[in-house]
Amino acid sequence: MEIAELKDRFSDHWSQAAALRMLTIDAVEKAGSGHPGMPMGMADVATVLFSKHLKYDASVPEWADRDRFILSTGHGSMLIYGLLWLTGTPGITLDDIKNFRQVGSPTAGHPEYGHIRGVETTTGPLGQGLANAVGFAIAEEALRARFGKKIVDHRTWVLAGDGCLMEGISHEAIALAGMQKLSKLTVLFDDNGISIDGDVKKADITDQRARFEACGWHTIAVDGHNPEEIDAAMEEAKAQDRPTMIACRTTIGYGAPTKQGTAKAHGSALGDEEIAKVRDAYGWHHAPFEIPEDVKSAWEGFGRRGAEAHADWQTRFDALSDNRKALHDRITKGEAPKKLAPTIRALKKQASEGLPKVATRKASEMVLEVVNPVMPETIGGSADLTGSNNTLTADLGIFTPEDRKGRYIHYGIREHGMAAAMNGLWLHGGVRPYGGTFMCFTDYARGAIRLSALMGVPAVYVMTHDSIGLGEDGPTHQPVEHLSMCRATPNTWVFRPADVVETAEAWELALTTTSTPSILALSRQGLPTVRTEHKTKNLSAQGAYVLAEAEGKRQAILMATGSEVEIAMKAREMLQAEGIGTRVVSMPCMELFAEQDERYRKRVLPAGPVRVAIEAGVRQSWDRWLLGERGREAKQDFVGMEGFGASGPAPELYAHFGITAEATVEKVKALL
Amino acid sequence: MEIAELKDRFSDHWSQAAALRMLTIDAVEKAGSGHPGMPMGMADVATVLFSKHLKYDASVPEWADRDRFILSTGHGSMLIYGLLWLTGTPGITLDDIKNFRQVGSPTAGHPEYGHIRGVETTTGPLGQGLANAVGFAIAEEALRARFGKKIVDHRTWVLAGDGCLMEGISHEAIALAGMQKLSKLTVLFDDNGISIDGDVKKADITDQRARFEACGWHTIAVDGHNPEEIDAAMEEAKAQDRPTMIACRTTIGYGAPTKQGTAKAHGSALGDEEIAKVRDAYGWHHAPFEIPEDVKSAWEGFGRRGAEAHADWQTRFDALSDNRKALHDRITKGEAPKKLAPTIRALKKQASEGLPKVATRKASEMVLEVVNPVMPETIGGSADLTGSNNTLTADLGIFTPEDRKGRYIHYGIREHGMAAAMNGLWLHGGVRPYGGTFMCFTDYARGAIRLSALMGVPAVYVMTHDSIGLGEDGPTHQPVEHLSMCRATPNTWVFRPADVVETAEAWELALTTTSTPSILALSRQGLPTVRTEHKTKNLSAQGAYVLAEAEGKRQAILMATGSEVEIAMKAREMLQAEGIGTRVVSMPCMELFAEQDERYRKRVLPAGPVRVAIEAGVRQSWDRWLLGERGREAKQDFVGMEGFGASGPAPELYAHFGITAEATVEKVKALL
Repeated sequence: MEIAELKDRFSDHWSQAAALRMLTIDAVEKAGSGHPGMPMGMADVATVLFSKHLKYDASVPEWADRDRFILSTGHGSMLIYGLLWLTGTPGITLDDIKNFRQVGSPTAGHPEYGHIRGVETTTGPLGQGLANAVGFAIAEEALRARFGKKIVDHRTWVLAGDGCLMEGISHEAIALAGMQKLSKLTVLFDDNGISIDGDVKKADITDQRARFEACGWHTIAVDGHNPEEIDAAMEEAKAQDRPTMIACRTTIGYGAPTKQGTAKAHGSALGDEEIAKVRDAYGWHHAPFEIPEDVKSAWEGFGRRGAEAHADWQTRFDALSDNRKALHDRITKGEAPKKLAPTIRALKKQASEGLPKVATRKASEMVLEVVNPVMPETIGGSADLTGSNNTLTADLGIFTPEDRKGRYIHYGIREHGMAAAMNGLWLHGGVRPYGGTFMCFTDYARGAIRLSALMGVPAVYVMTHDSIGLGEDGPTHQPVEHLSMCRATPNTWVFRPADVVETAEAWELALTTTSTPSILALSRQGLPTVRTEHKTKNLSAQGAYVLAEAEGKRQAILMATGSEVEIAMKAREMLQAEGIGTRVVSMPCMELFAEQDERYRKRVLPAGPVRVAIEAGVRQSWDRWLLGERGREAKQDFVGMEGFGASGPAPELYAHFGITAEATVEKVKALL
Repeated sequence: MEIAELKDRFSDHWSQAAALRMLTIDAVEKAGSGHPGMPMGMADVATVLFSKHLKYDASVPEWADRDRFILSTGHGSMLIYGLLWLTGTPGITLDDIKNFRQVGSPTAGHPEYGHIRGVETTTGPLGQGLANAVGFAIAEEALRARFGKKIVDHRTWVLAGDGCLMEGISHEAIALAGMQKLSKLTVLFDDNGISIDGDVKKADITDQRARFEACGWHTIAVDGHNPEEIDAAMEEAKAQDRPTMIACRTTIGYGAPTKQGTAKAHGSALGDEEIAKVRDAYGWHHAPFEIPEDVKSAWEGFGRRGAEAHADWQTRFDALSDNRKALHDRITKGEAPKKLAPTIRALKKQASEGLPKVATRKASEMVLEVVNPVMPETIGGSADLTGSNNTLTADLGIFTPEDRKGRYIHYGIREHGMAAAMNGLWLHGGVRPYGGTFMCFTDYARGAIRLSALMGVPAVYVMTHDSIGLGEDGPTHQPVEHLSMCRATPNTWVFRPADVVETAEAWELALTTTSTPSILALSRQGLPTVRTEHKTKNLSAQGAYVLAEAEGKRQAILMATGSEVEIAMKAREMLQAEGIGTRVVSMPCMELFAEQDERYRKRVLPAGPVRVAIEAGVRQSWDRWLLGERGREAKQDFVGMEGFGASGPAPELYAHFGITAEATVEKVKALL
C-alpha cells in the first residue's frame, strides 16, 4: 500500500506507525549509525500487533502470562525501543532514545537482554531470536500443561527477516517448531527482498512460504503496509493448530524517497536531506524526537490494553494453592529447590562408598536420575544422541504435540537450534533447560552458546565424548581445542569432572546458578572413582583442590581434569614409589578456581614444586596455571595434545599421543 | 524392493551390492565398532552409481575431470572403503579393510581426506559433505567457463542422510545451490526414516522433496533398492537445468533380519548371530572378507569403465597450448604464481612510502585489488557483507547462473555454508577460495573452519570488525574470545595485521601455503601505517618481530597485534619521554612465531624487561608470551578485555575498557 492511501484510509494507524518510523530515523541520525530500514518497513505490522493482538501490560513487562514479542532482526532495535517508550514501559525514557547506541545507555545498538525491561532476548546474530522463540513456545506449552490454561495461555510473536531465514539455524528452528506443532508461535517475516548486498535474489530464490509449509507450518502472505490484511492474518494465525508464518511484503525504508526499497536504507543514517524529504512525504512536521500528544496517548492506551487481563490473571493466580504458587514463584525466579543439596550429597556419599567405575556421561545420568524428580522445572534433551549423551531419565516422558507434560525433547540433529531453544526456554521463565551432544559439536552450537554466556542464561550443555578417549570415530569427533575455546569465553563455566562425585558437584553448581551457562565435558570411557572419601562440601565449587597430598617432601604437583585425573593418580603412585613426593590437584573448573582468593589458590598451587598438567586437549588454557600462579617456566610441562586426534581404540590413542602415567613420570623427573 | 525379488530379477547387481554389504558388516564386526546401517541401506544406490553413472578411472583417482563422489554421511565410511577396494583403487588393500578403525590405518572411522586416495573430503560432522559439494560444483562450473567443456565436464554426487538434512548447514547449502542452478550436482538422499534416537518422526516431519523444490531443486523419489528406478532417476538428474535431489527410500541395515529398519542397525556391530542370519538371508556363504572372484572382477571392470574417457581427455588436454597447460597444472597444484611476490612487495613499498591511514579491512581490499588480477584462481565472496568485508575487487565479476566466469560469490547470510563451500572449492582443485564475514561470526562457521584446519585446506577467512573497535553494534558483534579460540585450533594461522604492510604480508602467506587455513582478523576502524620503513622481506612470516627498538636501556617490551599496535607505539613514545627504554613487538601471527627457532624468539623476547601485551580480546592466548618464553609472573601484565564488550562509539569503548596508551604506561611503570 502506498503512503497516500495508508494515510488516507487509516489515519490513526498511520500516525501511530509514523511515530515509530520518525523515532527510528531521528535516533539513528543522532547516533550517526544504526539501521532505519527495517523499523520503517515493519512499523505497520508492529503497530497492528501492539494495538490489537499482543497480550501485554506495559506497566509490568515481566507479567508471566504476557505474549512474548521477539525481534529476531536485532539490528532494527529502534523498532523495539520505540515500542517500549511509546507504550509507556518503565525503564526507558525519551532521553534514552536520544542516547541510542551510546556507552551505558539501555538503548544499545542491538537489543540486549537485561539492559532494558521488555526486551525478551538479546538479538543481532541472525536467526537466534527465531530459534529462541521455539524455546519460548515450548516453555509455554510445558507450563500450560502443568499449571493449566487459566495461568499459562500466551503466544510468541517473532519478527524475522531474510537474513534470519537464510541462516542455517532457521531451518533447525522451523523444522522443530513444525514437528512440535507449536500453534502459538507466529513468525512475522519482513519480506522486503533486500539484504546488505542488495536484492536478496543475488543470493537466494527460496520460496519461503513453500519452505515453511514443507516443515509443517501454516503460511499467509499479506501487504505489510495494509493494516486490515495484517490484522486478518494475525487472527487467522491464532486459529491454527500449527505454527504460522505471515510473509509481510514490505518496502525497506518505507517513505524515504530516494533510498526506500534499496540496501541504502538498511544500515546507515539517512542524512539530513533525506530525513527532510521523509518528513515531507509523511506530512510529519514535528521537531526531531517530538511525538504529538494524541499519538503518544494512543500508544499508552495500547500499553494499558492488557491491564485488565493482567488483573484477572492475578486473581486466578492468587486463587492457586500455596504450594502451587510457591512452585510457580520458585521456578519463575530460577531458584533451585531445597531438596537439591541433600540429593546431591546423598549421591556423592553413595559414590564415595560404592566406588563405581563409570564414564562421566553415565555419572551425569546417575545425577539426572535423582535430580529430575526433585526439579520439575528441568527440560532435557539431546541432538539425536540420547543414548550416547545419557540425558534421558526414567521419569521424564517425551515432549510431543500429544504430550506436553513430557520433559524430554528429541531436538533432532540440530545442535545450534537446540542451544538457541534452550536459551528461549530459560528466558521464558519457569524452565531450567539442559541438552546434550558431543563435545566436538560445541562447534555447531557456538553461536547460541555464546549468547547463553552473554545473556547469563544458565543452560547446561551436556557434552559427552570429550576427548580422544572416544576412540574410533576419529579426529572429526575428537575435541582437542574445545576446552580452551569454551574457557576463553567470558561468563562460562567449563566443568570436566573426574568421577561420579565431581560430576554430581558440577551439576549442583550448574543447576544453582541463575547467571552462567555450564559446559559439562564428559567422558565416553569408564573412569574410576577418585573421590574415595566423602565430603559434604562441594569441592568443585572452588574450581580446583588437592585430591591427593604428597607423601614426604612435596617435589611435584600434577594437575589434571576429567579422564586424566586417573592418569595423574597413577603417575603419583609411580613417583611416590620412587620417593618423589607428589600432590595431585584436580581442576574440574578453571573459571571457579580463578575466582578464589589468592590465599586459597596459593595453598593449592604453592611455589616450589615442579608442575605438570595432564589434559587430553591443547595446552592454551593451562599456560596460566603452569607458568603463572607462582609457576616457573623451567619447572613445568604439559602432557596433552598438540594437534588433531586419530581413529583407533581409545587406550591405543592415549599411548600413541603419549598421554600416559609413564610419560607424566618422565616429564616430572626431567624437571627435578 | 524385497531381497528375494532383487536377487531374482537383478542377480549380478545383487551380488555386487552384497559385496559392499558384507565387507561393511565384516569390517565393523572385526573393529567392534562402526556403522553398518547406512552402507547396507545404500549399497544398491552406490552400485548403480559406480557401475553406470559415475565418471572415474579407479587407477587414477586424482584425474582432474572425474566425477566427484562425496559421502556426506561419513559414519557410513565402510561404503566408500568398500567401493574403493572393490574397484581396484590404488592405496587400499583388503588388509586395510580388515584394519578398519585402527591406529595408522587409512580406513579411519570416518573418511579422512589425505589419508586415502579417492576420498574427496573429510566427512562425519553432518551436513559438511553436502555443503562441500556445493563448492565442488561451483568450482566445476568456474573451471569449465575458463577451460571449456572439453577439459572440464564432470558432475558431483553426494550421498546425504536425514542427519545431514536436519543440520542447519544443509539449508544454507541447498538454498545456495538452488539459486546458483548447479545442474551438475545431485544429492542422493538416504531416505531411511531412522536416526540414532529412532524414528526420524520423533524429531522431524519435513517433506524433504517439497523443501528442496522450494529452494529451486528438481526432485525425484525412488525405491532405493530398485536398480532400474535408481538408474532412471540418475539419467533424469543429468538432464536437468538445476540441481537434483533423489530421495531414495531405503531400509537401514537392509537384510539384517532383527535389526533392519531400526536404529539398532545404525551405529554398532551387528554381532555374530545377526551376521550369520544376514549371510543366510543373502545366500552369501563366504568367509568374512571373502569376495568371490567374479564379483571382484565385475567391480574392477566398473573401476576401468572411465579409463578410455580418461585417455581421451588426456589427449584433449595435451593439445592445449603450453600456457594453458601450465596454468592448469599450477592452479591444480595450488601453487601461487611467480608474480605474487613482486606484487606484494610493490604494494608494501607503496604503503611504507605513502603511509596510508586505513582500516585493515580496507588494506585487505588494496591487497586483493592487486592480487586478484595476477591470481586467476581466486574465487572470493562474502556472507552478505561485501561492502563491510571489502572482499569484492573491480575485476572479479559476479558468479551467477548466467555468468560462470564471475569470480565473486554472493554467499548470502550463510557463514557456515560459505566456509564449507570454500573447503569444497579448494578440494575440487583449481580454485583458491576466500570469503568474508564479521570476526564474531567465526562462531557460525566454526564447524567448517575446523575442517579446513583438519584437512589442511588453505581457505582464507576475511574476518573484519575484529574487536570492540567496531563500536556501536555492541557485544553481539564484538569478538573478544575469538582470537584465542582460533589460536587454540591446530593448523590454523590467525593473522591480526597492524597496517597495510602487515596485511599484505599476511595475504602473501595465506595465498602461498597449500596446507593451512588463515583467519585474517581485520579492523573496521582506520589505523596508521606502522611499518614506515620498507623491507622486501616478509616480516610477518616470522610471526612476531621488533617493530620499534628501545632507546637507551631496554626496560620494557610491549607486545601487540592489529589495531593495538598503534596504542603500543603511542605508549612507547610516552615511556621513552620519561626515559624508559621501550621495545614494541608486533605479533601478527602467534602460530608462526611459535614455529621460529629459540634463538630468534629469544632475540625478540629476551629475558629481563617487563612485558605488557595489548590486545582488545581476552588474555588466554597471551599467557604463553607473557609468562613463558623467559617471562616472569611478577614482571608482566595485560591490557585487554575481561568480559564482553558494549555498544558505543569505538574510541569511547577503548577508554571505557581501559585499552589505552595511558593504561599501558601505567602498567609498565607499576611493574618497573
